[in-house]
Amino acid sequence: MNYPNKIKKNNIKETNYGNRGMSLESELNSSNEYYLINDIAIIHKKPTPITITKVNYKSRMDAVITEAFFKIPSTTDYNGIYKGKYIDFEAKETKSSTSFNLNNIHAHQIEHLKKIVTHGGIGFLIIRFTVLNKTFLIEIDKVLDYINSHNRKSIPLDYIENFGYIIRDKYNPVIDYLEIIDKFILKENDYVKE
Amino acid sequence: MNYPNKIKKNNIKETNYGNRGMSLESELNSSNEYYLINDIAIIHKKPTPITITKVNYKSRMDAVITEAFFKIPSTTDYNGIYKGKYIDFEAKETKSSTSFNLNNIHAHQIEHLKKIVTHGGIGFLIIRFTVLNKTFLIEIDKVLDYINSHNRKSIPLDYIENFGYIIRDKYNPVIDYLEIIDKFILKENDYVKE
Repeated sequence: MNYPNKIKKNNIKETNYGNRGMSLESELNSSNEYYLINDIAIIHKKPTPITITKVNYKSRMDAVITEAFFKIPSTTDYNGIYKGKYIDFEAKETKSSTSFNLNNIHAHQIEHLKKIVTHGGIGFLIIRFTVLNKTFLIEIDKVLDYINSHNRKSIPLDYIENFGYIIRDKYNPVIDYLEIIDKFILKENDYVKE
Repeated sequence: MNYPNKIKKNNIKETNYGNRGMSLESELNSSNEYYLINDIAIIHKKPTPITITKVNYKSRMDAVITEAFFKIPSTTDYNGIYKGKYIDFEAKETKSSTSFNLNNIHAHQIEHLKKIVTHGGIGFLIIRFTVLNKTFLIEIDKVLDYINSHNRKSIPLDYIENFGYIIRDKYNPVIDYLEIIDKFILKENDYVKE
């Protein structure tokens, strides 16, 4: 399990070198900002969870954390509200062009998303195949269907293509994942209700 | 604005000396854990937002953050889902026994909670008067009503007593704020709908 290492790397890239408009994370942040400014949805990325052990108080206003450690996140990275619905998801990039390795996601994060759906929310993954430059949204139920019926530790691309939805590039928002929610997921839920 | 300072202090207390079962934050964390374990609701405290500037990679698995700074939070501390509803709130303690100073909450946090309500969520404050040992839940609309009709920078206790709801001490969960949501807020919303 090399997850904590990955969190760090993302963080350093983000804070030291800034948003280059290339990573899935920065594109999602910009899309969420678009949704927020245009009053479409309120969805935020959660801060990276850390345990702070030493703080240096230079002055009353200006403190520096001098020792802290990365924690394994207990939930997913993104949540918020859209059309009265609770939205919750995790976003991951993969360099593979054939499958998404489930080791990229903690078991308890999948468990968390499953519970969200049970409680009436919308839970999903956003997966980008960087080499193929394709980004998909797949509902957590479909991920669980795969996990429960296969022994493989990774989901093949063709399963994601068949049971997920491709998110097409746009200018603004760059990743319009709420369009997918609108067209396919809220619609489905409405059919069930009626 | 001395907010960043306050965040630090809470964090240090939490991480260095552990949960003494005394602070509002630790009581809310334990209540949220109770809700989670009993499959009642999924509500988490967001991590403290920081900007990481230096990381020391001792080994692949073991990284230490050696320099980081506190950021002003862009949202509230707590959010999640209860009975299909998006829940969002901020929790604050005050030593005053007569009023709650609005400087304790960032203007953009109040703005955030207001938007949550517009989008169909439930947004509120949990305020504890530590000297009186009284904890209240007050909907953000009621807070805004007060702000919009008064010039004072603090909300008097009697306004909170009249327009908020007292949360009575229980054994488990210690702060059963969802009972208030159930009895008064979801009920009201249902009346509106019918």
